[in-house]
Amino acid sequence: MKRIERVGAIIKILSENPGKQYSLSYFCDMFQSAKSSISEDIHAAKQILETIDSGMIETTAGAGGGVRFLPCISDTDTAALLDLICEKLRDKSRILGSGFLYTSDIMFDSNIVKCAGEIFAGRFMGLGADYVVTIETKGIPVALMTAHMLNLPLVVIRRESKISEGSTVSINYISGPSERIQKMSLAKRAVTSGSKAIIIDDFMRAGGSIKGIIEMLSEFEIEIVGTGVVIASTEPQKKKISDFFPLIYLGSVDESNKIIEVFPNSLISCKKIL
Amino acid sequence: MKRIERVGAIIKILSENPGKQYSLSYFCDMFQSAKSSISEDIHAAKQILETIDSGMIETTAGAGGGVRFLPCISDTDTAALLDLICEKLRDKSRILGSGFLYTSDIMFDSNIVKCAGEIFAGRFMGLGADYVVTIETKGIPVALMTAHMLNLPLVVIRRESKISEGSTVSINYISGPSERIQKMSLAKRAVTSGSKAIIIDDFMRAGGSIKGIIEMLSEFEIEIVGTGVVIASTEPQKKKISDFFPLIYLGSVDESNKIIEVFPNSLISCKKIL
Repeated sequence: MKRIERVGAIIKILSENPGKQYSLSYFCDMFQSAKSSISEDIHAAKQILETIDSGMIETTAGAGGGVRFLPCISDTDTAALLDLICEKLRDKSRILGSGFLYTSDIMFDSNIVKCAGEIFAGRFMGLGADYVVTIETKGIPVALMTAHMLNLPLVVIRRESKISEGSTVSINYISGPSERIQKMSLAKRAVTSGSKAIIIDDFMRAGGSIKGIIEMLSEFEIEIVGTGVVIASTEPQKKKISDFFPLIYLGSVDESNKIIEVFPNSLISCKKIL
Repeated sequence: MKRIERVGAIIKILSENPGKQYSLSYFCDMFQSAKSSISEDIHAAKQILETIDSGMIETTAGAGGGVRFLPCISDTDTAALLDLICEKLRDKSRILGSGFLYTSDIMFDSNIVKCAGEIFAGRFMGLGADYVVTIETKGIPVALMTAHMLNLPLVVIRRESKISEGSTVSINYISGPSERIQKMSLAKRAVTSGSKAIIIDDFMRAGGSIKGIIEMLSEFEIEIVGTGVVIASTEPQKKKISDFFPLIYLGSVDESNKIIEVFPNSLISCKKIL
């Protein structure tokens, strides 16, 4: 294979397996090439991704070393994504009454949640997390994409304990605009005590669900190293949790004039964080 | 930019947006290059993906034409994935009693469901589907990845109708080993009548849930063009639906001797289908 072919192939293989470490020998064997050639190929691949501002290739030397792709959405693409979500959210037909908005189409749009996952991955990379944790249902897609970008397992907390989950730990928590008591369940075998987790969810109002997740994880002595939500409402100002990272803020929903106030979190920049 | 850089960039951009059509002008503008150069670049990119057997680049001529990436997992990778799932499923610690197996870690593994989604996408590509439909919860990851590979929206049927779904249509259906009556709900605004859908789910025993999904979609006059499940049990032999495509068959679960019988669907070949 020629250099151009090896470089193209390396870009394809690394970028579709974010976070996965490949040894140099893997590519040497694949292309029947010397280590020195492969090193140059990887260097070329790295520069291409830098030029188009589309993630980075990290090389580590030594016995356990190798090469892996770390996704990083550009500031331009981040801004475009947040604008797209805001524009979609401003559509007045989303108003369902009682302050609720229809957001399922956004949360189940694979392109949107993939980009959102890239933003969260950039934010929470390098914190030593062992899992991405969410609670069913609408947060699953964005949590899955975040997990994929970080090469971590996804853990989904269920509302009801299911027979297919085996033995579970359940807690009650208070959430929702009417501060209702709800239940969540986590399979005992889904996590290991003493590990670290990132929490990802689709929407946060006062933070009751996420506080519940934190309590649940503390039953397993799991440390939370980051919390990301796609949309956080500005009200109530006093949240039940202190440290979270939203992509979008939802302000007032004026049901009589059909005006939905939304704005992007202006503090997001993948670049600054990495 | 040099050819090697343009080709690398084209591979990265196309392959991370499966199914999305790009015009030649998009790349001409991006790289400040003539159409003839970009055509040659795309041709080179196409050949590289063919060489490493990792999806294909499709070009269409004319005014509405352009270029897009169609994912296609190689036969080798398909076989490796099915073997991996089978090996994981054979782990006797998965036995939960009453014939149930713990599968959440598999269904929430982003690398596994991404490859499974690629197999389903290869199988159901070109059938004119408008959506990928699943029912919460454990089928969501694989359905999302399938939707992503086909560049289609994901529609998730809920167990309970939620206020955040707006007005819904609900049906009762019979499912599970104990043939229990269950309920499913779909937001009216999630689908358009007269469209086409692919159904994807994690597990199928007799097919009650999928029969329920078909009934639900028929309420909206939606045609089913394909049904894929990750695992189908061999028992009962008589299924409630006739046409489905499983990746893995689950045979008997011998709880006293802790033996789980699983085998891959030997009829799978992405190549033959495309």
